[in-house]
Amino acid sequence: MTAQPDFSKGGGLLPVIAQDADSGRVLMLAYMNQEAWEKTLETGTVHYWSRSRRKLWLKGETSGHVQKVVDILVDCDLDTILIKVHQLGGAACHEGYQSCFFRRLKDGTFEITEEKVFDPKEVYKS
Amino acid sequence: MTAQPDFSKGGGLLPVIAQDADSGRVLMLAYMNQEAWEKTLETGTVHYWSRSRRKLWLKGETSGHVQKVVDILVDCDLDTILIKVHQLGGAACHEGYQSCFFRRLKDGTFEITEEKVFDPKEVYKS
Repeated sequence: MTAQPDFSKGGGLLPVIAQDADSGRVLMLAYMNQEAWEKTLETGTVHYWSRSRRKLWLKGETSGHVQKVVDILVDCDLDTILIKVHQLGGAACHEGYQSCFFRRLKDGTFEITEEKVFDPKEVYKS
Repeated sequence: MTAQPDFSKGGGLLPVIAQDADSGRVLMLAYMNQEAWEKTLETGTVHYWSRSRRKLWLKGETSGHVQKVVDILVDCDLDTILIKVHQLGGAACHEGYQSCFFRRLKDGTFEITEEKVFDPKEVYKS
């Protein structure tokens, strides 16, 4: 059997850090359950578990900005996953930024540190 | 008032990714509550909330391997924190490795990818 994180922890839902394999930039944090883990290994494309929609979530399903698996690491407690990815479309964030971490704390406020890569209104048409 | 993440989410406990400010390496994932957030801002040294010990946790309190804050970022949902740090002692993991993510999935098993920076038995003496 393939080694895997300890899904008996965290109520079966473990945090996953997605990091750009080339730039080293942290792109986002989401969650995986056993099913999302298996689907990710099987397809080589990152699947999460959407906590808000309560369903398996192929990241980039709507936008086309999927994440191709480059490397999968686990932490010392086997309860956090780090996935190095190739981020298609150049942006992980649904708000159009390369990374979901596009704001930094400066002088007591959050300042936006980068330009949008795409316009969400154009990508997520209703 | 200083801008802050949304601690009304996650039962008041938000995941924090610590990333080495120089190498870009992801070091660990832990959690902060409001108190840990404030203590971190106040001291410039990273404090977490220990879920196992249920108390404020100055990372490196025992080992001396504290994390000095370089930059603090928040994600689009304001419920995940990314802190870029200077990792004193060169190692974040209590098992003696630079990063808690010292194992990668390869051919169905987790292989250790690096050498220990310190010997835990020497650092955590009882």
